[in-house]
Amino acid sequence: LPDLFLRACRREPVERTPVWIMRQAGRSLPEYRALRERHDFLTCCRTPELACEITLQPVRRLGVDAAILFSDILVPLPEMGVGVEFGPGPRIERPLRSRADVEALRAPDAREATPFVMEAVRLLRRELRVPLIGFAGGPFTLATYLVEGGATRSFAEIKSLLFSDPATAHLLLERCAATVASSLAEQVRAGAQAAMLFDTWAGVLSPEDFRAFALPYARRVFAAVVEAGDDHRGGVPRIYYAGETAGLLGSLAEVGAEVVGLDWRVDLGEARRRLGPQLAVQGNLDPAVLLGPPELIRRRVAGVLRGARVGDGGHGPAGPALGHVFNLGHGILPTTPPENARALVEAVREQSSAAEAPLGPAARRSEP
Amino acid sequence: LPDLFLRACRREPVERTPVWIMRQAGRSLPEYRALRERHDFLTCCRTPELACEITLQPVRRLGVDAAILFSDILVPLPEMGVGVEFGPGPRIERPLRSRADVEALRAPDAREATPFVMEAVRLLRRELRVPLIGFAGGPFTLATYLVEGGATRSFAEIKSLLFSDPATAHLLLERCAATVASSLAEQVRAGAQAAMLFDTWAGVLSPEDFRAFALPYARRVFAAVVEAGDDHRGGVPRIYYAGETAGLLGSLAEVGAEVVGLDWRVDLGEARRRLGPQLAVQGNLDPAVLLGPPELIRRRVAGVLRGARVGDGGHGPAGPALGHVFNLGHGILPTTPPENARALVEAVREQSSAAEAPLGPAARRSEP
Repeated sequence: LPDLFLRACRREPVERTPVWIMRQAGRSLPEYRALRERHDFLTCCRTPELACEITLQPVRRLGVDAAILFSDILVPLPEMGVGVEFGPGPRIERPLRSRADVEALRAPDAREATPFVMEAVRLLRRELRVPLIGFAGGPFTLATYLVEGGATRSFAEIKSLLFSDPATAHLLLERCAATVASSLAEQVRAGAQAAMLFDTWAGVLSPEDFRAFALPYARRVFAAVVEAGDDHRGGVPRIYYAGETAGLLGSLAEVGAEVVGLDWRVDLGEARRRLGPQLAVQGNLDPAVLLGPPELIRRRVAGVLRGARVGDGGHGPAGPALGHVFNLGHGILPTTPPENARALVEAVREQSSAAEAPLGPAARRSEP
Repeated sequence: LPDLFLRACRREPVERTPVWIMRQAGRSLPEYRALRERHDFLTCCRTPELACEITLQPVRRLGVDAAILFSDILVPLPEMGVGVEFGPGPRIERPLRSRADVEALRAPDAREATPFVMEAVRLLRRELRVPLIGFAGGPFTLATYLVEGGATRSFAEIKSLLFSDPATAHLLLERCAATVASSLAEQVRAGAQAAMLFDTWAGVLSPEDFRAFALPYARRVFAAVVEAGDDHRGGVPRIYYAGETAGLLGSLAEVGAEVVGLDWRVDLGEARRRLGPQLAVQGNLDPAVLLGPPELIRRRVAGVLRGARVGDGGHGPAGPALGHVFNLGHGILPTTPPENARALVEAVREQSSAAEAPLGPAARRSEP
């Protein structure tokens, strides 16, 4: 079923719910750790053969229905003029602190800044039998890293900038959006079959600030993806993910994606009812459930699949939901036993299979 | 207006919206820092005269409409049998790791465990002209600290326990609930006029897990508060606060509080519509707004006040909302300039004042 994932993104009928796992490439697999003993993190991102191998690992071991490129949302930073280290969390060498810092920021063309990413995409398309998802960081999230310099709980630096000097904040966000748009569009031109924006930190904004500082820049990136994906048959599905969006559901339809990723802190059925049937959803099992026993994993998978059918615009409670890609609600935890990730994939496959093959769109239209 | 805050909690008519600030006692005021140069954090919590002085500082400087006891949700831990240090973030000496660790946990009577808290409450009632809020940590949040041992992003330890050994998790939550119930009930018996539960981490749970592991234990605590508050005129308002509850609004009415605190990641108007008019709300300005200029603070205060009137069950768009206590959506940031906190309080007072004094309930009922 090579295009199962893409059909689900487009809300076309599916035989079962496709499943992949955020952060499936890297992090939790022993074969990834073995490879990392010989190569550091950035070398893995910048070497197409290594990025390709790491991307393939979870496809082989877990049997997921989509591959996501092994890379990092901060990979464009050096060519923007900003040094970054991973030890293991990201650390920006000189966080932006002034208007002059922001003005000095470059918005590089991805073909020059990160050619290794597109090379990895091309290599992968020759190897993969499932669709390849390209990705980049949301402009707001990238801006947050640039200003905060690393992990934060309060987001005081970036918010000080937003609230005290919105003009500089918007300049920064424009540069980030241009960089990200080039990165994601070039991945699509190189062959990525879906394009995902990880706007991890956008959920720390109030609904008002999300609309001012995150949404318009994500839209700009997705517009560039649409243009780049014009010659793909059926277009390139766009996926938007931000954490903690339970209070932002009213804005997610405007972000320019046909799929929105949801974290586990919202009931999937309630979210679908509020988002409306025109949006596909991706999610939303709590990653920590994979630290529990297989029986719990199966039960919780059933709950997510049930929620996905609420308000999906499909044909009732039997079979797989329309427009649902199963995933965790956040990246897989590094301590997750690989056999539990495998149990998740198997549970989704078993539990979401329709009793019969779904009817095609033509047949569906003739129904009452 | 000594009872303005209490009337707002009870959804009675008010002349203007009352305002106080989470973490107003301690953290950001220079007079607090001066005092902390001479006394360490736990000494301040355990010495009634010091706790009293710190509680009074923001009432004097900011003119808030309620005082909240200076203390910490982890103050009961030593008498539960668990060592804790503050340096400055809390660190549990030996995080709970086994069934035996949980079984060894005590659920102390607050009169023996933390008599200094009740003494501070009694001292404060003699000094204060605004109502005093007593508080404790939510049982789930206390359990999270006991198991995680300190700050965490993934909550992998506590969730492993919930998912792999729910029986032990429930035993732990029962002990925490008993400890917290005694603490909050005794504060009320000593004279606290409102009782607030800070269940800071409950918002990291999915709606299903919130209902299983946080809600029933918070209810238990509030039931003890109701019993303890029986002889207060009008009862003792109960306030429940958890961060990131935008996805949990459907459950908050069942938590046993008449006021729910909301963080800034949900639109207050939307939240009120979904919560229904029978619940009062507290919140919900992004604390980082206080890092911006006074003009922004005033504009954002107006937005929150406007949202509070949506679906409040009152008489339309003029004057203060029914059942709204203005607050930040999370604790004040340590770097907040005190003059900005003062500007917030003044903006709420000015902007929420009714053109005329509100009508009493009898007069209101005779309106069409």
